[in-house]
Amino acid sequence: MPLDLGAKGSCQIGGNVSTNAGGLRLLRYGSLHGSVLGLEVVLPDGTILDQLSTLRKDNTGYDLKQLFIGAEGTLGIVTGVSILTAPAPQSASNVILALPKFENVLPLFVQAKRQLSEILSAFEFFDREVYDLAIKHGQGRALSEEDVEGAECFVLMETSGGKREHDEEKLNQLLETLFESDKPLINTGVLSQSPAQFASMWAIREGLTEAVSKEGKAYKYDISVPLAKFKEVVDTTREHLGSKGLLRDDAVKHVVGYGHVGDGNLHLNVVAAAYTPEIEAALEPFVYELVASYKGSVSAEHGIGVMKTHALHYSKSNVSIEWMKRIKQLFDPKGIMNPGKVLP
Amino acid sequence: MPLDLGAKGSCQIGGNVSTNAGGLRLLRYGSLHGSVLGLEVVLPDGTILDQLSTLRKDNTGYDLKQLFIGAEGTLGIVTGVSILTAPAPQSASNVILALPKFENVLPLFVQAKRQLSEILSAFEFFDREVYDLAIKHGQGRALSEEDVEGAECFVLMETSGGKREHDEEKLNQLLETLFESDKPLINTGVLSQSPAQFASMWAIREGLTEAVSKEGKAYKYDISVPLAKFKEVVDTTREHLGSKGLLRDDAVKHVVGYGHVGDGNLHLNVVAAAYTPEIEAALEPFVYELVASYKGSVSAEHGIGVMKTHALHYSKSNVSIEWMKRIKQLFDPKGIMNPGKVLP
Repeated sequence: MPLDLGAKGSCQIGGNVSTNAGGLRLLRYGSLHGSVLGLEVVLPDGTILDQLSTLRKDNTGYDLKQLFIGAEGTLGIVTGVSILTAPAPQSASNVILALPKFENVLPLFVQAKRQLSEILSAFEFFDREVYDLAIKHGQGRALSEEDVEGAECFVLMETSGGKREHDEEKLNQLLETLFESDKPLINTGVLSQSPAQFASMWAIREGLTEAVSKEGKAYKYDISVPLAKFKEVVDTTREHLGSKGLLRDDAVKHVVGYGHVGDGNLHLNVVAAAYTPEIEAALEPFVYELVASYKGSVSAEHGIGVMKTHALHYSKSNVSIEWMKRIKQLFDPKGIMNPGKVLP
Repeated sequence: MPLDLGAKGSCQIGGNVSTNAGGLRLLRYGSLHGSVLGLEVVLPDGTILDQLSTLRKDNTGYDLKQLFIGAEGTLGIVTGVSILTAPAPQSASNVILALPKFENVLPLFVQAKRQLSEILSAFEFFDREVYDLAIKHGQGRALSEEDVEGAECFVLMETSGGKREHDEEKLNQLLETLFESDKPLINTGVLSQSPAQFASMWAIREGLTEAVSKEGKAYKYDISVPLAKFKEVVDTTREHLGSKGLLRDDAVKHVVGYGHVGDGNLHLNVVAAAYTPEIEAALEPFVYELVASYKGSVSAEHGIGVMKTHALHYSKSNVSIEWMKRIKQLFDPKGIMNPGKVLP
């Protein structure tokens, strides 16, 4: 299945398609717009739009099914999906790299893409503060003190491919290159040595959301910005909250960042003692304006739903929003499909 | 660039997007619906729809740009494209395999996908008859007589990846597995030993279209059908033409098949001494009905244009065509964009 995400135990494929879920391995397997081959959709008037094709190539007219991918159920209900599946990888390895400073993430990513190319299957970033929260709240096993010392952030890198020896050789060569450099991009690298350790490393990454929730009330932003701006977004938000006098134990406790580097997708989480109108007013529209200044997306993966309809204009032009409304009107003139969602 | 096709010297990227070009390495890099990140489109009323994003993940409303990919310019003119590019492969190898019978193609493909997985970048099929035409008309260098003896068809397989030794080892292991089998799927395999031989092998495959054109007047069908039916489609068409008394030197000289196995995309070419109403009447709607009986596509890559609007219904339901018309009416109520194309 060309999609993997934290919710895999409870989500449904129709929902994945309707929300254009991306997840942990989009870097490797691409978006659902590429991997969904066919859809069956029930339209608002009860008509069944049968585009449940299994063909990889079919250039016979407009690719209507694409409209329903990510439409959050506002144009029709997805009742059938055919999807392109990749051969299951024969082997997978991962490594957690500790970086002395954030500025090294981008050159590290470039280097990793060059040396690992087709076997690179995940490249996940998390800052030191959220790592510490994960460990505090029991997500995965802590790295040794030596390994985390002096680390400003971490990268979890995964490879998967058809032949274990080849993949390990490539990964080891990358690590050697990194350590032998005059100005090493990384402090240390912990390579998983067993399936248990492989799982434990992922447990840190996949447990970040839970750790944040255990620590306090979280304001969560799921945004796309250029990779080089990940830290800037987190720091600028923290400074902004500080300037409002909100960085206090009884207000905002942490401002952290983690996410899918390969996809330019940053999770900005603001952890507070409680949800308050004051914090909310300090965050919005501040964060949205910040994202818009980088031509980013105010919702990389989580969609618009009801909560972000007012923020749509930060990522989409008026012309785009106008055409979305016309599409909505065309398919659902009575407005009965998920009313209030997506469009303001 | 995640797209490679025969027309690369003369085509334009806006046209590639508007025709949803697939080409030779779709197997590896996927469809433009997955790799196009953003589009700028001029709409029929002169409005510029700016969706020229470079974000990999952006779930803010409907993905309108998808509508213009493959719309053949009937909804708007593509004036800007941002596209996801893959790291250039560090090495590429190819091999031509001679198969005793067509039935071996599918198991060979399964085996190749399993053993080569992420480095498999092309898997092209051509039958003996079209190979002979290619050699006759000087496309690429002929394989040795020994290599082609007893071959019913051929497969050109390409690998590309980050490390030459690894890729060659995988390819050699696959060949060993194939030869050591009790019932070998292949007669012989010719592995390219130099860049010149690599190019010459591709020259055979890429020269098939030209060879067919040199041999006579070609009726060309670009269809998607299940791989297991490739030969059946060619044979059934040949038998049908025979039953009409058209397999004669002064009418139909060859019925050949070649194409992109990995994409289920078959090029069915009927080579005649001259274009005649009699041959055309024997071929259409016969071929379209045959494709529809396999739930295939009457136009895998080449689109609908003006010539195939009458055939659209063989691959798309009435409901789908009705909704395409509504989309066309919504964007282009005056019908000024590429009039007469795509929709009947």
